[in-house]
Amino acid sequence: MARHLHLGAFIRPISIHTGAWRYPGAYADANFNLAHMRRFARALEAGKFDALFMADHLAVLNMPIEALKRSQTPTSFEPFTLLSALAMVTERIGLVATASTTFDEPFHIARRFASLDHLSAGRAGWNVVTTSNPDAALNFGREDHMEHGDRYRRAREFISVVKGLWDSWADDAFIRDQASGVFFDPERLHVLAHRGEFLSVRGPLNIARPPQGWPVIVQAGASEPGRQLAAESAEVVFAASSTLGDGKRFYADVKARMDVLGRPRDSLRILPGALVVVGETIEEARAKRDRLDSLVHYDSAVASLSIALGHDASGFDPDGPLPEIPDTNASKSGRQRVIDLAQREGLTVRQLAQRLGGYAGLAFVGTAQTIADEMEAWIDGEAADGFNVMFPYLPDGLDDVVHRVVPELQRRGRYRRDYEGTTLRDHLGLTRPANGFFAEGASA
Amino acid sequence: MARHLHLGAFIRPISIHTGAWRYPGAYADANFNLAHMRRFARALEAGKFDALFMADHLAVLNMPIEALKRSQTPTSFEPFTLLSALAMVTERIGLVATASTTFDEPFHIARRFASLDHLSAGRAGWNVVTTSNPDAALNFGREDHMEHGDRYRRAREFISVVKGLWDSWADDAFIRDQASGVFFDPERLHVLAHRGEFLSVRGPLNIARPPQGWPVIVQAGASEPGRQLAAESAEVVFAASSTLGDGKRFYADVKARMDVLGRPRDSLRILPGALVVVGETIEEARAKRDRLDSLVHYDSAVASLSIALGHDASGFDPDGPLPEIPDTNASKSGRQRVIDLAQREGLTVRQLAQRLGGYAGLAFVGTAQTIADEMEAWIDGEAADGFNVMFPYLPDGLDDVVHRVVPELQRRGRYRRDYEGTTLRDHLGLTRPANGFFAEGASA
Ligand SMILES: Cc1cc2nc3c(=O)[nH]c(=O)nc-3n(C[C@H](O)[C@H](O)[C@H](O)COP(=O)(O)O)c2cc1C
Ligand SMILES: Cc1cc2nc3c(=O)[nH]c(=O)nc-3n(C[C@H](O)[C@H](O)[C@H](O)COP(=O)(O)O)c2cc1C
Repeated sequence: MARHLHLGAFIRPISIHTGAWRYPGAYADANFNLAHMRRFARALEAGKFDALFMADHLAVLNMPIEALKRSQTPTSFEPFTLLSALAMVTERIGLVATASTTFDEPFHIARRFASLDHLSAGRAGWNVVTTSNPDAALNFGREDHMEHGDRYRRAREFISVVKGLWDSWADDAFIRDQASGVFFDPERLHVLAHRGEFLSVRGPLNIARPPQGWPVIVQAGASEPGRQLAAESAEVVFAASSTLGDGKRFYADVKARMDVLGRPRDSLRILPGALVVVGETIEEARAKRDRLDSLVHYDSAVASLSIALGHDASGFDPDGPLPEIPDTNASKSGRQRVIDLAQREGLTVRQLAQRLGGYAGLAFVGTAQTIADEMEAWIDGEAADGFNVMFPYLPDGLDDVVHRVVPELQRRGRYRRDYEGTTLRDHLGLTRPANGFFAEGASA
Repeated sequence: MARHLHLGAFIRPISIHTGAWRYPGAYADANFNLAHMRRFARALEAGKFDALFMADHLAVLNMPIEALKRSQTPTSFEPFTLLSALAMVTERIGLVATASTTFDEPFHIARRFASLDHLSAGRAGWNVVTTSNPDAALNFGREDHMEHGDRYRRAREFISVVKGLWDSWADDAFIRDQASGVFFDPERLHVLAHRGEFLSVRGPLNIARPPQGWPVIVQAGASEPGRQLAAESAEVVFAASSTLGDGKRFYADVKARMDVLGRPRDSLRILPGALVVVGETIEEARAKRDRLDSLVHYDSAVASLSIALGHDASGFDPDGPLPEIPDTNASKSGRQRVIDLAQREGLTVRQLAQRLGGYAGLAFVGTAQTIADEMEAWIDGEAADGFNVMFPYLPDGLDDVVHRVVPELQRRGRYRRDYEGTTLRDHLGLTRPANGFFAEGASA
């Protein structure tokens, strides 16, 4: 049987593309409008998505004000509050919140995810990040971001503390015997008493064990320690692979790390982020994408191009081809990718800049058929277990995926026609972890 | 016209009384069952309550395990997640979450309350606490609780930072002009750049200004610095006054502090917490209360009595009167109150202990009429602007208040028959604060 694939939906920002809010017919406030968010979540649930995934940042994005003022990102809901609200207007779809191990406390994080998991009857996931935006430090009393290696060592310790706190209570600890007056069995309560390099946390957590045991652990770090952490503890990885070749290498790398650790490969799903632009014809889809890119202001666009090239591009002729660039000490591979992209697609400087200023990662642009073909190639080529779908604009870009791509994948036997279980673990085909301190059903 | 009163509902724990979950017909899991919480919130909204109020603790309560195991408190939802969920199944009632200035970060707190206020269309309130349970420190990497004076200095600075962050964006900052591509006006964005004794926070906040300007500031600290902080910045105080005389003294004290500060008295509502037990007759109400107290296990009860007396009471005859207690260096006034209570109501040691082990604060026990009489006496005696109602057991104890006491207050012209506005500020009769950095409507 053909391998099934998994679909997550990237919803913060509600479109990754900086031109999205200007697209004809788009909701300009889609990123920060509860009625829209509710409609999107329900549409994704009708499309049987595994989860919706909310990225998160702890500072207004670190870009020049001229670019920032054109971006919808500074206004958005906070993940725990938004996803708790959406838990009440959906029934099956998973709810993945991003939370930082650098700028928060394990007691708070463990508790909020446990609470979200209870409120949603087992649909919570935690996208563990060490926080990519260094400006966040300034909002938390620090001068600089914590050093990269320290961030990941703290993250590893943090995750183990959070899991330990989730396991504070045996699943059957709460007896609630009205006759005897005993509410819980003290023998079924574990005090963590953790003391480590970065954290000291006594416990126990003041909430019962989550319905999923542990909410699903998601990770998106791309560096060497990021991949290693994923191999050790992630159950879903949001990959940033932008070509099939990259995807295969990343997939093989992370799964090989799991082999070394003795973790079954099947206990981790790798979902690259992908912008999906659907047309009736390939030409129509490309025209939509071009239109979208054209909505990126040239000032922001050229700033992105300059960063990618490691060379000031503001003097280039916008309507000419990319000129020769003298060598700099910027990342050579990054620059070469940009030059190759311009050549491959025959882009002018303006088009190239707008591509980079809009969204330059993996994109599937075509008909439902060609998109399904590409998705299948990634799945069968062991480059992905599914995708974290990004929408080009809202609401139409989302509805196109739900109403065209999903049915095509269903016809091909690649995607569920209905949810088979109720929890996010069920959707992802992941088992419920046993409590680290108590054997199941072995109540005293 | 008779002064109207305000009603909040205390919902974490869902009953303050430790025997509540054992009461005949009570939901034993009322504290931690979403379907019940939803029903309670809706019932309170039908009763036109100003708000529901969720206390919060950052550690399992610091009581001996023999008492703790009889308490429902170790399992409850986390406030931000629960109240966000309840925002979706209610329309008018205010949602007050407790959050600590000692164990959290102003950026997180400002952002979560702003998000809750947006999700609920202006119904959020923040109960500012410095955290009463010293064990919380052990869950946040500290050996000891921060010193009391430091806690309050930090709280004062923390509140001002949170307000500054809420004011990061002018109310009209977001233009979302699809034609020009400008999403917000950079002139209408304020970078706080706070550096103070305890906190350094740059800002801006990554969410628009809350609908209420600032969510309502609530405070419950009873000490000298607690009262002073309330007079400076609270808009609601949850008082712990247990007699009418205490209530008057507390009310006069806090309002006099406001006079000194030049704050209008009317910008702060004082709501003592009150257990409300309703019967068809006074005798029936008293019998309910006695029954409830009798459900407190004697071990927990006698531990509470010993603490209150500063003397081990475990050797006393449970069914005899309270014996003479030798002098100790425990709080004399606290002890005398207990001795007076035993004499006034003619309680045996067991009854006295169970009263203290259950709930010993302000209680209105009687018919709808006598309860309304007492409430009026507090309001007209300038001891309260309303009450934070605590329920003896769920669901009946709550339904009794909504179906019997509220209509009686309405008949007397003391309570709204319907909500007149939509926000928590509207219900409380509080004005929306202006942005500290931008004049209203003075957009560039
Ligand atoms: C799909 C995807 C989503 C991400 N979401 C977030 C996020 O929400 N917040 C964040 O701080 N970082 C986010 N990141 C960044 C990663 O957590 C990580 O910081 C980045 O990939 C750099 O990797 P490294 O930290 O391992 O060097 C995301 C990365 C990817 C690929
Ligand atoms: C009605 C009421 C509710 C309270 N709720 C909380 C709470 O949820 N969390 C908390 O840590 N403290 C809570 N407190 C404790 C106060 O914040 C404060 O710590 C206590 O009254 C002692 O006062 P002080 O800190 O000013 O000495 C509450 C107090 C009262 C009277």
